[in-house]
Amino acid sequence: LSINPGHASLSKDKPCKRLVLHLHDVLLNGTANEAEATSAVVANQTALGAYKFGKFVVFDDPVTADESLASPPVARAQGFYFYDMKTDYNAWFAFTLVFNSTRHTGTISIMGADLMMMDTRDLSVVGGTGDFFMARGVATVSTEAASLYYFRVKMEVKLYECH
Amino acid sequence: LSINPGHASLSKDKPCKRLVLHLHDVLLNGTANEAEATSAVVANQTALGAYKFGKFVVFDDPVTADESLASPPVARAQGFYFYDMKTDYNAWFAFTLVFNSTRHTGTISIMGADLMMMDTRDLSVVGGTGDFFMARGVATVSTEAASLYYFRVKMEVKLYECH
Amino acid sequence: LSINPGHASLSKDKPCKRLVLHLHDVLLNGTANEAEATSAVVANQTALGAYKFGKFVVFDDPVTADESLASPPVARAQGFYFYDMKTDYNAWFAFTLVFNSTRHTGTISIMGADLMMMDTRDLSVVGGTGDFFMARGVATVSTEAASLYYFRVKMEVKLYECH
Repeated sequence: LSINPGHASLSKDKPCKRLVLHLHDVLLNGTANEAEATSAVVANQTALGAYKFGKFVVFDDPVTADESLASPPVARAQGFYFYDMKTDYNAWFAFTLVFNSTRHTGTISIMGADLMMMDTRDLSVVGGTGDFFMARGVATVSTEAASLYYFRVKMEVKLYECH
Repeated sequence: LSINPGHASLSKDKPCKRLVLHLHDVLLNGTANEAEATSAVVANQTALGAYKFGKFVVFDDPVTADESLASPPVARAQGFYFYDMKTDYNAWFAFTLVFNSTRHTGTISIMGADLMMMDTRDLSVVGGTGDFFMARGVATVSTEAASLYYFRVKMEVKLYECH
Repeated sequence: LSINPGHASLSKDKPCKRLVLHLHDVLLNGTANEAEATSAVVANQTALGAYKFGKFVVFDDPVTADESLASPPVARAQGFYFYDMKTDYNAWFAFTLVFNSTRHTGTISIMGADLMMMDTRDLSVVGGTGDFFMARGVATVSTEAASLYYFRVKMEVKLYECH
């Protein structure tokens, strides 16, 4: 008997676990919103293009089960993003979802390109710990709201390896 | 019947998918090469050592099937690298290959140490989406050209998990 | 015969490989410790909170088999961390363990949240090369020493995929 795990079939429609979450990012704007802010610019945009190329933001964002920023967070998203395109808005993310509730304990780490011109884009779930021990999968992201110092994205986290 | 996936054997010589690509990085040099530039310095080198320790670059680099920068890109490589050694040139990379063509759609995310003193070095493919759904593997990198504001690396992307 | 690798059972208590390591970080402090320093600040802390939010450090840290900084390194840890909490010290790490000895050759890449208020915290092993080809697992980290320009963490690297 020989099983080749490298060719095992996984169905995209059938994750072993699925979470729908909303991430809220409130960017520090001087002293105007210091109480609410959950992220801050660590390095300014460069001179390349007109779309904030290189602007680098660190965040510790609340993650809620519904769309309201006022809802109790079910997780925190800790990580960073930066803009990385000359000709349009585009970004790259790496972050960890940190769960610490009666429902879930553990982490899910995510990274990938955030192709902002697409309605939905897929990032990779590259690891997990605790309740999400050894998880892998895909996080499908779509922007629900965006203004100068706030954005909200919907994240559908689909795990295809559950242990 | 019990199969332990943790000890499954995979042959390094037999990836389930293999891509040979060339990544071109053109670093912004003031206004001299703004039209061609595909990357920019986000944080300057620190005072540690004489090998640009800490210099941090964000990129959106064209990736071609042959060695020519003028060839139509088959993908973009979006991410960052930084120098990280006191005593020699050495770097660390994290990026996502973004494919959007008739041939391939999807992403491959890669990270790892770029041990520049070695002729070839292996980075890890940590995730994939779209045509590369749930991919994992190794990206073997070698420098083909390097000057002050341009480098080209060959990447042999070998996937050992294909779904 | 159908095997669903997505639900394969892995026991947290039975990694296929386990390494206990100690990572030493000596942060550059002007010219005072340039000879010993193994890391440097690339971006300063922001104005968000009082816990160094956004302070970004690149490192090439020695990794030893025992607790002594003077011991011969068994690996280097190359990567970065940054602080990312308004209300307490908290960090996020991404780095690659680079082994190059008679005992081990290859790399292990790790990322995740470093929840500093916890005695131990789990990061994800997201990839490996060489002797650690296609590895995945968990790195459990605990702080052993911390002062203004030095810290040491114990890392228990547990791999659950060994090929």
